[in-house]
Amino acid sequence: MSLFFVPGISGDRIQLDRDESRHLVRVLRFKSGDAVKVTDGKGTLYHCILLSDSASGCELLIDSTESHEEPGPFLALAVALTKNRERTEWLIEKAVEIGIQVFIPMMCRHSERELLNRDRTERIMASAMKQSLRYHLPTLAPLTPFEEVVKLFPQRRRIIAHAGAKQSMNRILPAGEDALILIGPEGDFSTDELATANAEGFISAHLGKARLRTETAALTAVAAFAMIQ
Amino acid sequence: MSLFFVPGISGDRIQLDRDESRHLVRVLRFKSGDAVKVTDGKGTLYHCILLSDSASGCELLIDSTESHEEPGPFLALAVALTKNRERTEWLIEKAVEIGIQVFIPMMCRHSERELLNRDRTERIMASAMKQSLRYHLPTLAPLTPFEEVVKLFPQRRRIIAHAGAKQSMNRILPAGEDALILIGPEGDFSTDELATANAEGFISAHLGKARLRTETAALTAVAAFAMIQ
Repeated sequence: MSLFFVPGISGDRIQLDRDESRHLVRVLRFKSGDAVKVTDGKGTLYHCILLSDSASGCELLIDSTESHEEPGPFLALAVALTKNRERTEWLIEKAVEIGIQVFIPMMCRHSERELLNRDRTERIMASAMKQSLRYHLPTLAPLTPFEEVVKLFPQRRRIIAHAGAKQSMNRILPAGEDALILIGPEGDFSTDELATANAEGFISAHLGKARLRTETAALTAVAAFAMIQ
Repeated sequence: MSLFFVPGISGDRIQLDRDESRHLVRVLRFKSGDAVKVTDGKGTLYHCILLSDSASGCELLIDSTESHEEPGPFLALAVALTKNRERTEWLIEKAVEIGIQVFIPMMCRHSERELLNRDRTERIMASAMKQSLRYHLPTLAPLTPFEEVVKLFPQRRRIIAHAGAKQSMNRILPAGEDALILIGPEGDFSTDELATANAEGFISAHLGKARLRTETAALTAVAAFAMIQ
């Protein structure tokens, strides 16, 4: 099954852009009259009929709609970006596939230079959402300094992952509870940052014995969160 | 800290190859007399002194050795390869970083064409081992048909992951026990394959509600296994 993503749908017609139209007609070989599924990334699934099967711009007629509640619990993931953009991009792709609600690129004391391309990242997120047949596009937060990240989601279970922590994240991730998890840069969080987070009520936790790259640590946390639900 | 990998060490000297020598001298700027750490990928860590800092071939003198037992429990991971080689390669990189003992490329009924380059994959595994400061290089098994994979590791907790399973992998992964986990191709395992696995004593388990790509499913299983230890 293929799912298409069109933000901001209104009325009873949907125009697919050039790339999506090309994919539908040339790759998937859809013809006029075929059924097509579209989501707006906000929880609505549109069952459509393909009216015009032109590779330069397909027109769809909305036949019926379905509302989907976003399945919780929700994970917000704040990550100090890596200097390698590809590594960040695959992390975001995988995190969306497995399931996150918000991705927060975070600026830390020991952060590398940040290289996130927002347009490209949003396309990757949309693509991962479609791939995993989700109907909610996670939010890509703006680049946020550590000091502001620790003020976010004060009602949630909030965890800061670092190698020196005494307890494993697995022991403190409760099923059914929303969470915010912070993953630091290669040089880890600074002592000041750890103190700030602890003062804000964050719990420190490690992700096992191995030394993990930032993106691997982040993915491990996302998978662990998904698996306990 | 940097770790170097040289298979098959004997005597009291180690010659680094051209790539490793170049990295040591040109990138890390090591000089004669500096301390260098080397592993043979079989559990031994060699504390060495750099004798000649030539970028075309460094010579090291072994000063002392340390034996490391491979920390268990052990995970053998059998995966139906994806048709996209990059996706398989990052899976293997991440799996080694997080921790696996054996990677088995598996041929299934619905497998895509297999594209694993063994030399390249072994280099990726060695690089991930060094990155995560491990001293044991996981085994890369040969491409193995499903029917043979289900005969492997009969003493272990053996799990076959598929979307239709009733229980979550998280509930059946016991801490402290070695495991073999099978991850199927995009088209999932065939009904016959599932029946064969069940007859061999494999437990069926799903990895959550989302539809995951093969490599994402595999990574989720590896992370979940690591986190419960």
